[in-house]
Amino acid sequence: MTDELADSVLGAARRARAAAADLAVLTRAQKDAALEAMASALEAETPRITDANAQDVARARENGTSEAIIDRLRLDEKRIAAMADGLRQVAGLPDPVGEVERGYALPNGLQVTQRRVPMGVVGIIYEARPNVTADAAGLALKSGNAVLLRGSSSALASNTAIVDVVRAATARTDVPQDAVQLVPGDGHEAAKHLMRARGLVDVLIPRGGAGLIRSVVEESTVPVIETGVGNCHVYVDADADLDKAVDIVLNAKTHRPSVCNAAETLLVHADVAGAFLPRVLGALQDAGVTIHGDERVRGYAEHVVPATDDDWAVEYLSLDLAVAVVDSLDDAVAHIRRWGSGHTEAIVTRSLAASQRFAATTDSAAVMINASTRFTDGEQFGFGAEIGISTQKLHARGPMGLRELTTTTYVVTGDGHVRG
Amino acid sequence: MTDELADSVLGAARRARAAAADLAVLTRAQKDAALEAMASALEAETPRITDANAQDVARARENGTSEAIIDRLRLDEKRIAAMADGLRQVAGLPDPVGEVERGYALPNGLQVTQRRVPMGVVGIIYEARPNVTADAAGLALKSGNAVLLRGSSSALASNTAIVDVVRAATARTDVPQDAVQLVPGDGHEAAKHLMRARGLVDVLIPRGGAGLIRSVVEESTVPVIETGVGNCHVYVDADADLDKAVDIVLNAKTHRPSVCNAAETLLVHADVAGAFLPRVLGALQDAGVTIHGDERVRGYAEHVVPATDDDWAVEYLSLDLAVAVVDSLDDAVAHIRRWGSGHTEAIVTRSLAASQRFAATTDSAAVMINASTRFTDGEQFGFGAEIGISTQKLHARGPMGLRELTTTTYVVTGDGHVRG
Repeated sequence: MTDELADSVLGAARRARAAAADLAVLTRAQKDAALEAMASALEAETPRITDANAQDVARARENGTSEAIIDRLRLDEKRIAAMADGLRQVAGLPDPVGEVERGYALPNGLQVTQRRVPMGVVGIIYEARPNVTADAAGLALKSGNAVLLRGSSSALASNTAIVDVVRAATARTDVPQDAVQLVPGDGHEAAKHLMRARGLVDVLIPRGGAGLIRSVVEESTVPVIETGVGNCHVYVDADADLDKAVDIVLNAKTHRPSVCNAAETLLVHADVAGAFLPRVLGALQDAGVTIHGDERVRGYAEHVVPATDDDWAVEYLSLDLAVAVVDSLDDAVAHIRRWGSGHTEAIVTRSLAASQRFAATTDSAAVMINASTRFTDGEQFGFGAEIGISTQKLHARGPMGLRELTTTTYVVTGDGHVRG
Repeated sequence: MTDELADSVLGAARRARAAAADLAVLTRAQKDAALEAMASALEAETPRITDANAQDVARARENGTSEAIIDRLRLDEKRIAAMADGLRQVAGLPDPVGEVERGYALPNGLQVTQRRVPMGVVGIIYEARPNVTADAAGLALKSGNAVLLRGSSSALASNTAIVDVVRAATARTDVPQDAVQLVPGDGHEAAKHLMRARGLVDVLIPRGGAGLIRSVVEESTVPVIETGVGNCHVYVDADADLDKAVDIVLNAKTHRPSVCNAAETLLVHADVAGAFLPRVLGALQDAGVTIHGDERVRGYAEHVVPATDDDWAVEYLSLDLAVAVVDSLDDAVAHIRRWGSGHTEAIVTRSLAASQRFAATTDSAAVMINASTRFTDGEQFGFGAEIGISTQKLHARGPMGLRELTTTTYVVTGDGHVRG
């Protein structure tokens, strides 16, 4: 039984590998035409997709799934139109394949060119939101990669419908059909076979909660790019413009609390604690934020929940904020290095030296100087689209766009050169 | 017992992490001064190192180790001087830390700068050659990383002496002592703890045989960069200059058969088989190369061993060469994609179209056009030094120099910017 499953997963991976060889030599025009065909097909087949989605939603209801999750699962005309728009946006982006990263001539006359090429086969393991199915397929295809999609079983009917529609659309283009495949089989076993398909799958990108990401990192022999966990900090320096600091803290915490680039901890320099904390804590509490403060913070406001180590460590993803007073910039950095997840840290300061030291010593994917942590985002960074935000250091760090779905090849041209 | 070992390995990793924070802000001048101090110390302490090495060599003898391995293990004055020279060469290289990969302003006025920063803590797991200890320490330090060195137990006395000398030298510089550490404990258990130290160790680079690399890939939860296995091909096209083809094949196979960028398989287009094979096979056999040929090849020369699938798959690392006749460039590429290791493939051709198609369709770290596979090498590519040759697609592909030991941070500067 499991062997049958392994065979079908590995079979899909082999077909993806074969498709990748053809994808690698397609022109941008050929890939963009396929993306346009996929977008039109999603629009034309909207009823088929919403019907399939209705089955998933009904099943989720039976299983007593929370309304929040069901809302993430639900697809309507508007959301499907957004998926189609997303594919057209990707078609409008430059093609990273063929870009020359660097090139030079060696003393012996050899010409070295480091050129961007597709990864080959990209695996995506993701939860709930079925729109990821179309987004990931579009980004993988534009960057010349075949994609193996492993969505959650709760969205199986929706994902199957979307992939069927997309594959039918590519069949009328130069893109090989097996460029986009849903990993066969249900449950964790199938994902496990995908994670062990080293040599067939070039990279695995988990998109979802910390639990999913941890299990992929633990079990996968295929190289993994970790995404998403964000315990982001805002540090208000002794030299901060306090008006800007209030705006940045409020935006970082309350603009969209459920996402990874929202702030979870506020660190305030002792020199400005007296002037700043009463103002910012009042504004935060007015905005419905629960404050978890250390002892010094609790001296500045009412209704502050005493903070424990758990508060420094946790990614709330809610209207909660951990707040501490620190005696120096270096103490703030030490706190961030100890408790942070390496996603995004912001400093509010007028001091050039402070901004430089903060940027040089916090060990994170992104550092915001006098700006909200919310700006760490592929769209905001001008990538046009985003496959995720890497919180690891290998290959990609921070928002990942099309370029991060490629690798490079050295092409070395000689005239009969041999090594002496 | 094992828990004690785990504590000491993780303790070393934590000290490395702390050292990495200080290393990240050192200037190039400070790092170069430490490299110079390390080089001078290796020269001054040569007797101490050769004495320690003598113990390793004696133990290897008792254990009946082969003379080839013992030769790799042996350190003499010349080899220690070469280690010192290597460190001085690294000091002479530009510092990748602080390099700006790209930078631009966003429509809202935010200034985005992607800046190179050290990885943090780099782990190296390696075999036999104790000179790797100094090389890896130098490259890690220059790129601002703390390094955890895990050599083979057969070289323990030599590696311990080298690391002691290096640490004593850095103590007189601005480089923190724990920037360079030998992983404590002996045997596989200690390496295992290193491989599981995710969050403390940022990347693991195994250097050694296929067995070592496979076990690290299998067991490690720390991100791994795979290095080294090279089943390299030379394809002689229908349009090849046959004189150059003979020189390239001989150089690729016989210049240094034991290394990963040596050629292991020769593929010859059927149109030139008659003109080329008798010449090249004769020249190879004169050079002492054993030919393992397919049926068509065996028609062109005496003393050809019939080739099996094992011959297409194996990395001989010896004076053996697998040879096949193919009917087209695409057949050659198909053979390479099926049997190759993605290291280096060479094409000999006068045809621009053939060279372009070969470069675009072979899925390897490096493609040589009318040049020997032997040129895939950090030194040859002008990197000045090399930590290894990556055969994976994630993060680094091909020869890895200092740049490949760094990651990047996005520094985003605003003036109170918040997201609307």
